[in-house]
Amino acid sequence: MTTDHVTVAILGAGSWGTTFAKVLADAATEREEAIDIRLWARRDEVVEDINTNHLNSEYLDDLELPETITATGDAVEAVTGAELVVVAVPAQQARQTIADVAEHIDSEAILVSLIKGLERSTQATMSKVFAEELNLPPEQFVVVSGPNLAKEIARQEPTATVVACEYDPTAEWVAAMTASSYFRPYRNTDVVGVEIGGVVKNIIALAVGLTDGQGFGDNSKASIITRGLTETTRLASALGAHPDTLAGLAGLGDLVATCASPLSRNRTAGKLYGQGHSTDEVVAQMRQTAEGIKSVSAVVALAHSVGIEMPISEAVNAVVNGTIEITDIAQLLLGRDLKPEARL
Amino acid sequence: MTTDHVTVAILGAGSWGTTFAKVLADAATEREEAIDIRLWARRDEVVEDINTNHLNSEYLDDLELPETITATGDAVEAVTGAELVVVAVPAQQARQTIADVAEHIDSEAILVSLIKGLERSTQATMSKVFAEELNLPPEQFVVVSGPNLAKEIARQEPTATVVACEYDPTAEWVAAMTASSYFRPYRNTDVVGVEIGGVVKNIIALAVGLTDGQGFGDNSKASIITRGLTETTRLASALGAHPDTLAGLAGLGDLVATCASPLSRNRTAGKLYGQGHSTDEVVAQMRQTAEGIKSVSAVVALAHSVGIEMPISEAVNAVVNGTIEITDIAQLLLGRDLKPEARL
Repeated sequence: MTTDHVTVAILGAGSWGTTFAKVLADAATEREEAIDIRLWARRDEVVEDINTNHLNSEYLDDLELPETITATGDAVEAVTGAELVVVAVPAQQARQTIADVAEHIDSEAILVSLIKGLERSTQATMSKVFAEELNLPPEQFVVVSGPNLAKEIARQEPTATVVACEYDPTAEWVAAMTASSYFRPYRNTDVVGVEIGGVVKNIIALAVGLTDGQGFGDNSKASIITRGLTETTRLASALGAHPDTLAGLAGLGDLVATCASPLSRNRTAGKLYGQGHSTDEVVAQMRQTAEGIKSVSAVVALAHSVGIEMPISEAVNAVVNGTIEITDIAQLLLGRDLKPEARL
Repeated sequence: MTTDHVTVAILGAGSWGTTFAKVLADAATEREEAIDIRLWARRDEVVEDINTNHLNSEYLDDLELPETITATGDAVEAVTGAELVVVAVPAQQARQTIADVAEHIDSEAILVSLIKGLERSTQATMSKVFAEELNLPPEQFVVVSGPNLAKEIARQEPTATVVACEYDPTAEWVAAMTASSYFRPYRNTDVVGVEIGGVVKNIIALAVGLTDGQGFGDNSKASIITRGLTETTRLASALGAHPDTLAGLAGLGDLVATCASPLSRNRTAGKLYGQGHSTDEVVAQMRQTAEGIKSVSAVVALAHSVGIEMPISEAVNAVVNGTIEITDIAQLLLGRDLKPEARL
């Protein structure tokens, strides 16, 4: 497949969708190839800001967007004729968003998910939601995930990511479309491993934020990150993933970037919980969705359905549901018995 | 083995040796058992500060030390009759320190290493140095390692650690001696895995510090931590360790705590290199030893001897040796090819 003159649709103009548009645009410029990127935004003021000022001021401040990116409020217009369709909406809106345009998506188009969440009502990963709504074969589904704080990529700081597809030539094409001097994609065929890594890291980041809010130090946080990755790997393996995927950029890498960064929405949300706020209060204070809050009940249910214990995710779920006192969280997050370290 | 009325010698009164003395003292108090802890310090003023003021002001500010801890400037006096001998000196001083008192150490005593470095001249781990100097059977050698920033433990913040011995009952005894409301030991029999995790994390922390000094963001750091743990696991596995040990508290946990913390000596040293300082300048600015600077050449040599590639450690080694320009470090630390993510 050629990388020249590709038409791309990006559904969702939040910080990551918009930044990914810039990644594709900059990569094409470096390749000296043409590209046509149509960014769908729900709100008129965002469409106008992009088309008139080449800015998405609400999410990316004064970052200037390449001229190959145009915005539209019409999702059907965006996807019609697109060879690459990227979806960057909150997980709970994914099914409806793609169902609304399904009949206009080219049957050969490659779909990319930038979403890091499960569907609450079905516990479905995005690969499953996409497959169901579009009757999409695995050869056409790609997930992009890694230590990818959008604002750092927007500033062109060096970043690595994972591009995963069960069919490697598709991943190779998406990697070639996105690779640039500051953005380095690595291929993987373990789609479910990459997806689960992205979903659960938001929950572990909530747990790390909780300990921030409670005033714990870096020793405690490192323990939660370590055990959090262990339970993530346990769940992913039960779903057929390769454990090495979770030890890689889309597992450990993404988890560490999210937990290290003051820019992380989920860590910020966790800190608010740790300070004693309820879910209603936390959601009211967040400008963009903290996916962990939405996905945690589905992750816990999915773990139960495959017989896996996830103590940190269960503790976070109890906090989100308001069923435990926040002051009891330390004991739930940090075990107390003098036992051998658990093997996977 | 009883945990009551144990006599402990601790060789080395830096921040970690002194804090570990407090851990043992507080654990005995919680068990309502007696303990006698003799802390050996090289310098008279430290001995006097501890014995007169119950303080080690130079390393632990105004932290009050329990009265069961007494200091001595005589290492032979410290170890004579001790059932537990803890060594917390810089790695390059370990062999001489224990050789000097070897004939006075009880033949049944349990030895604990808190040291996270290799001996430069021999590439030996501390378990090997101890075995050689004391003719010590593996049943009597314990390594304690984990996400253990000393100042956080001194403040009694909740912390987990790994207590490793090839003979589990010995680890069980040391775990029982150290467990308290704020310090939670987990047992492991994988001594070499725990040792290598502690040694290489200092080098990865240097690499993370380098990117700080060069102004990179959290995406880059997360990639270095991820790849750093991969190369650590590769080396440890080649030496007979179980990969899960490196995914646990003494591998990932320690690495993340060190790389997250502004208190980390090795990260601080890396940042100075990243700002363009030479090894002489960096060492002159550090108050305590940054073990990574001392160990990195031995780690690289050890890796070569077992046929393992460690690109991040090799880049750090080149920086420490002054054989590359600091501005070339980005390319060395962050790969550039669009390849599949490396399996272990």
